[in-house]
Amino acid sequence: MDPSKISLPVLKNLSTDTITENVHMINTHNNPNPRLSYILDRLVSHLHDFARETRLSTKEWMAGLEFLTSTGQTCTDVRQEFILLSDIVGLSLLVDSMDHPKPTELGATEGTVLGPFHTHEANHMESGSNMSKDTEGEPLLVICTVKDTNGKPIPGISIDIWETDSTGHYDVQRPEVNKGEPDGRCVMTSDAEGGFWFKGIVPVSYPIPHDGPVGQLLVKLGRHPWRPAHMHFMFDGKGWDPLITALYVRGDPYETTDAVFGVKDSLIVDIKEVTDEAMAKKYDVKVGHKLLTYDFVLVSEEQSAKLRDQRAKEALEKLGRRVKIVDGLPVPDLD
Amino acid sequence: MDPSKISLPVLKNLSTDTITENVHMINTHNNPNPRLSYILDRLVSHLHDFARETRLSTKEWMAGLEFLTSTGQTCTDVRQEFILLSDIVGLSLLVDSMDHPKPTELGATEGTVLGPFHTHEANHMESGSNMSKDTEGEPLLVICTVKDTNGKPIPGISIDIWETDSTGHYDVQRPEVNKGEPDGRCVMTSDAEGGFWFKGIVPVSYPIPHDGPVGQLLVKLGRHPWRPAHMHFMFDGKGWDPLITALYVRGDPYETTDAVFGVKDSLIVDIKEVTDEAMAKKYDVKVGHKLLTYDFVLVSEEQSAKLRDQRAKEALEKLGRRVKIVDGLPVPDLD
Repeated sequence: MDPSKISLPVLKNLSTDTITENVHMINTHNNPNPRLSYILDRLVSHLHDFARETRLSTKEWMAGLEFLTSTGQTCTDVRQEFILLSDIVGLSLLVDSMDHPKPTELGATEGTVLGPFHTHEANHMESGSNMSKDTEGEPLLVICTVKDTNGKPIPGISIDIWETDSTGHYDVQRPEVNKGEPDGRCVMTSDAEGGFWFKGIVPVSYPIPHDGPVGQLLVKLGRHPWRPAHMHFMFDGKGWDPLITALYVRGDPYETTDAVFGVKDSLIVDIKEVTDEAMAKKYDVKVGHKLLTYDFVLVSEEQSAKLRDQRAKEALEKLGRRVKIVDGLPVPDLD
Repeated sequence: MDPSKISLPVLKNLSTDTITENVHMINTHNNPNPRLSYILDRLVSHLHDFARETRLSTKEWMAGLEFLTSTGQTCTDVRQEFILLSDIVGLSLLVDSMDHPKPTELGATEGTVLGPFHTHEANHMESGSNMSKDTEGEPLLVICTVKDTNGKPIPGISIDIWETDSTGHYDVQRPEVNKGEPDGRCVMTSDAEGGFWFKGIVPVSYPIPHDGPVGQLLVKLGRHPWRPAHMHFMFDGKGWDPLITALYVRGDPYETTDAVFGVKDSLIVDIKEVTDEAMAKKYDVKVGHKLLTYDFVLVSEEQSAKLRDQRAKEALEKLGRRVKIVDGLPVPDLD
């Protein structure tokens, strides 16, 4: 189609005060997707208000664009600098908490940031396997269950588990050591009692990659790039709301200042020791072996969708926006 | 310094509602730069409010991060996709209009978007030179003056001028044609009467580069990527506020729907013809040659700084923010 024949509204009197409504007008006029219209409307309004409230200078604007360019160009197959950026400004935590709300009053396990180091390369392992080849790490026995909010075990759930090695690096960050083989990660399936157990190493604290633009920003802000020691878990099963979470080791020096805002009280755990001979025998470890136990609680897709819609409606009504939920996501209700 | 010894506030109860204040707290605590604190405060608040108002889903968040990654990775030495993105959401126009406010009541020439195609490679040319090697373009004589708001000529101003060739491409977009030599651009200096004149070609409308992420976004929004025909001018001289502007050819099919929001009424010009024999002789063209004339009016750095500060104060007071201006830029006044 001849682009000059596209029907678009006439832009006029473009100035500091009128530019926003003009951008909304042209973004909405031919846009067939109301959700995209709503997202762009809110994004452009906030972007412009940000610029107006800071009176952003041309020099600062250019520095911002150069920062974003450099952030994009730092991304590779095994490094996602924009996820890091989202993490260190709290956006990742916020999005997860809205998209996967947890009825904590029912004991549902809280979610937290995914981080940029989940991969799809992990091997499936049977309960009892050792997912870590790192001989320098302190061996850890991990025994877990996964249940619903009524305490009923959930069998057949797929669980992705990943942690760093004892130097604080994920396998993908050290291809020279791991030769492309997954390490410190596995996928398990919960058994008939909802149980799964495995051997790994005691998590260590580590800095997020900070030799790029995000690291430079942290320095300018007087922040450190460290994350407290943790182990990631991701649960997936038909009919269950995906749970992306992590367990944090209590007492870590970065427990209260996590660079990516991932720590929640309910996810802080104690590293214990196996004290019982029978248990040691059962799990093929010695007494005194480090031990982590946790009982995860999932919510159903239905529970989650209902709670998500309800919170979306409440939040938007509080903001004075009439909304309707279309395909699980709010758009303005213009009727 | 041991990063675990960095003094930082304790983050707590991170949730949809509390994450923003926690991010502000940690971004401000050790930050030595109040302007950077203020920018981050406003940026994070708006980013979080955007996510809360849209209830941004994890899938949409990831699509957004992938879009930004791809935008960064589309950038090269001769292509700045983030400037394009800023242009098509009206941010570029907004920032320029705040940073270089023009007292239009005194006749000051308005500014407009720089665009991504200014280079530092243009040759300096004497008045009367032809800056275009394009033999397919329609020859155009351009006669201009540059004066102050009292009508006094300003000599010695450096003027960058650039336009596309007759196919709608800047020289840097067609290295195979231009072999790295600048074309369709030059730098001139205003003479004792504030005058400068040169030969180029009649500008043509053209689409912004739309084979990348920004072009894909425009398609999704039902927008076209076209800009109305125009010629860029950038004025620079000691003591004068830099003027980045462009002149638009009246009657262009994209005059009212410029993809980058650059057109302002005061910058729309008529392409005339040389009708006078004496004038034709003086400028070494034939009667009937296409002609563009414009009298640019600059404001002094002092005028501009005063107006910028005044408008910043007014706008921020209107928003209920007590501010002080530090080095020409507002920061919250906490005293």
